[in-house]
Amino acid sequence: MLIIQHIITPVLPTMRKMSHPIIKDDEVDIVVAAIQPDLTSFLEEWRPIFSRFHLIVVKDPDLQREIKIPEGFNIDLYTNSDMDRVLGSTSILFTGYSCRYFGYLVSRKKYVVAVDDDCVPAKDGRDFLFDAVAQHIYNLRFPATPFFFNTLYDPFQKGADFVRGYPFSLRNGVKCALSSGLWLNLADYDAPTQALKPGERNARYVDAVLTVPLKAMMPLSGINVAFDREVIGSALFPGLRLVGEGKQRWETVEDIWCGMCAKVVCDHLGLGVKSGVPYVWRNDRGDAIDTLKKEWHGMKLMEEVVPFFQSVRLPRTAVAAEDCVLEIAAMVKETLGPKDPLFGQAADAMIEWVRLWKAVASVSPTPGA
Amino acid sequence: MLIIQHIITPVLPTMRKMSHPIIKDDEVDIVVAAIQPDLTSFLEEWRPIFSRFHLIVVKDPDLQREIKIPEGFNIDLYTNSDMDRVLGSTSILFTGYSCRYFGYLVSRKKYVVAVDDDCVPAKDGRDFLFDAVAQHIYNLRFPATPFFFNTLYDPFQKGADFVRGYPFSLRNGVKCALSSGLWLNLADYDAPTQALKPGERNARYVDAVLTVPLKAMMPLSGINVAFDREVIGSALFPGLRLVGEGKQRWETVEDIWCGMCAKVVCDHLGLGVKSGVPYVWRNDRGDAIDTLKKEWHGMKLMEEVVPFFQSVRLPRTAVAAEDCVLEIAAMVKETLGPKDPLFGQAADAMIEWVRLWKAVASVSPTPGA
Repeated sequence: MLIIQHIITPVLPTMRKMSHPIIKDDEVDIVVAAIQPDLTSFLEEWRPIFSRFHLIVVKDPDLQREIKIPEGFNIDLYTNSDMDRVLGSTSILFTGYSCRYFGYLVSRKKYVVAVDDDCVPAKDGRDFLFDAVAQHIYNLRFPATPFFFNTLYDPFQKGADFVRGYPFSLRNGVKCALSSGLWLNLADYDAPTQALKPGERNARYVDAVLTVPLKAMMPLSGINVAFDREVIGSALFPGLRLVGEGKQRWETVEDIWCGMCAKVVCDHLGLGVKSGVPYVWRNDRGDAIDTLKKEWHGMKLMEEVVPFFQSVRLPRTAVAAEDCVLEIAAMVKETLGPKDPLFGQAADAMIEWVRLWKAVASVSPTPGA
Repeated sequence: MLIIQHIITPVLPTMRKMSHPIIKDDEVDIVVAAIQPDLTSFLEEWRPIFSRFHLIVVKDPDLQREIKIPEGFNIDLYTNSDMDRVLGSTSILFTGYSCRYFGYLVSRKKYVVAVDDDCVPAKDGRDFLFDAVAQHIYNLRFPATPFFFNTLYDPFQKGADFVRGYPFSLRNGVKCALSSGLWLNLADYDAPTQALKPGERNARYVDAVLTVPLKAMMPLSGINVAFDREVIGSALFPGLRLVGEGKQRWETVEDIWCGMCAKVVCDHLGLGVKSGVPYVWRNDRGDAIDTLKKEWHGMKLMEEVVPFFQSVRLPRTAVAAEDCVLEIAAMVKETLGPKDPLFGQAADAMIEWVRLWKAVASVSPTPGA
C-alpha cells in the first residue's frame, strides 16, 4: 500500500487558505440546499474551509425571502427560475431538501460535497476546525475495501494498514464513489427516537472511516455527504417523497432511498462506499414532538424498502450508474409498486431523473471546470 | 431500545474491586496462554480488572521453565500433564498459541475472555485503565445488528441509537456471540507489513464497536477476544497450523482460520459478531525481520481461504455450532484439500476438535461453575 501523508489535520478558524496537495480546487463543488434564507452565519463558520472552492447554492423553491450570502465566496446561486430554465417541464419536485439534487445536476466537477445549512464545522477541544471537505475528498481519493472487513478500519488512513490475515490480492481495493459523513450534537435520528430522547446529543467522536462491506445496506444520510459525481452522481436523486413532507430532516426519506439505491449500484459496479469521519456539528432545528403528531409514514415504508434493496440483483448489461437506476426503477414498479402508491411515484421519479441527468448533467463540461 | 447505563468507565489502576452490575463474576473465565514463563508483570498490570474473575492459565507444552504467577488470583494452571489426562490421545497439537484452546475446552463458564500474555490494559491520557473485560461482556450481552449497517456504530452503546432509516423490525438485533477487540501500540499486522514499517505503532484509539455485517468476512485476531462459549465455543479451535509455526503472532494463522469459520457459523445460526473496543496495549515482542526470513506460507494460503469461506453455505440441518464445524470440515477437505496438504490437516483437526468438545467441554459443569 502507499505510504501517504495524512491531510486531515485540523485547521485554525482564522486560516483563510490551506494547502491540500491532493485536492485541486477545481475538482470540487460544494452544494448547499438553502432551506432558510440567511446563510450568513453558516457560510462564515465554513469560510476557512469553503472559500477556496466553488459553491452551488440552491434555493428551496418554497422559500419566499431573498437569500443572504456574505462577500468573499465563489458562489453560483440557483433559484426557481433557473430550475425552470434548465429543466424545462419535469415531474420531479425540487422543493425542500430535494432542491439540493438540482445542484448535483448542474455541477460539472468530479467531486460533490453536500452539507446541510444547519451544520457547521466540528471542532476539536482546542477550537481547531475539522476540515470536512479535505476528509471527504481523502476518503474518495483512496480506495475502498468492500470485499473483506479490515478490523483497524480504513487501511488507507494515516497510521493504519491491513491487519494480519487480510488477503494481499484484495489490498488494492476498489475506487471509492461515496463518502457518508456523520454528525456531532444533534444526530440524524428519526422523529420517534428524537422525541423519546429529546435531550440526547451525540458527543462521541469516533475517529474512523470504514468501507461498508459488499451487500451490506446502510441508511445514507444526505446531511453530510460527498461523492464522485462522474461515476455515481446519477444514482443520487430525489426519488421517494412522503406526502406532507416538511422542512425537517426527520420528515424526509429521500436520501435514505437513493442511498440504498447508490449502495446497490456501487456493489454492482465494483465501487466502494465509506462511512465515518468527517463529522459536522449539527445545530438544533425543529421540534421532534411536533413532527410526531404528523403521520410518520416513512418509518413504515422502510420495512418494505430494506428487504427490497437487499434482494436487488442487477444484470451484467447494466454497466453505468444510469443503467442501474433504470433497472432498479423497473423492479421498484413491479415489486414495491403494488404495496404503496409512493413507490410507483418513486420509480417514475427515477426514470425522469435519468432523463434529466442525460440532458443536463452529461453535457460537456463548462470551460475551466 | 433499552436505555442503559454505560459501564465502560475507566478504572483506577489502584482499584481492586469494581462494581459492574451486569457482569456476574462466575459467568466469566479469563483464558491466558502462557507462551513465556513469568506472568508476574502481566498479571500485576491486569490485577485491577482480572482479580475478581476465575483465570485459566494454559502453559505452552513447549515451555520448559516453571510458570511464575503472583499471589491473589483465582487461577487454575494447566500444563502438559493435564492435557494428557483430560484429552487422552489426540492428533491436535496444543503447542504455542494453540494451547489457549485447551482453556476453551476446560472452561465451564458462559463467557470466555482471552488476552495474549504480551498485552496489558490500555490507558487513557490520565492513566486510567480501560476495562477490557467489562467492555467485552457488554458487547456480548447486548444485541448485534448484522442485517443492516448503523452508521453511528453499535446502537446499544451509551449515547448512541439507531439512525434515521433503520427499520424498526431490525432494531431488536440478534444475540452477539463473539467480540473481537483491538490493539494499541503494536498492531496485529503480518510479518511483511511489520517488517516494512518497523517503527509504526498504532496510536489511534477509535471509540467504537460495530457489528460486522452478515456475510462480510473479517480477520479475527485471537490476541484480545471474547465469546459466548455456550453458543459458539465449539467453533473456536486450532485448525490451520503452519509448518514451522513459531512463537510470534505474525507466524500463526490459527485464529484467522477459526475466526472465519466462526463468522460463517454465526451468520448461519443468526448470531452476531462485533469488532472494535476494547483495546489492549500490546507490547513489542519478536523481530519481524527475522520472521520474514522464514517462508511465510500463511500469506499465500489466505488467497485460497477467504474465497472459500465467502462461498460456504450451510444446510438447514446444521443447528448447532458443532454441526456447522463438521459441515465446513467436509467442505474444506473436498474444496481446499487438493490445493495444499495443510488444508486436509485443518479439516481433520476440526473433526477431532468437535470430538474433544463433545467429550470434554459438553460434560456437565463442575460444581460452583
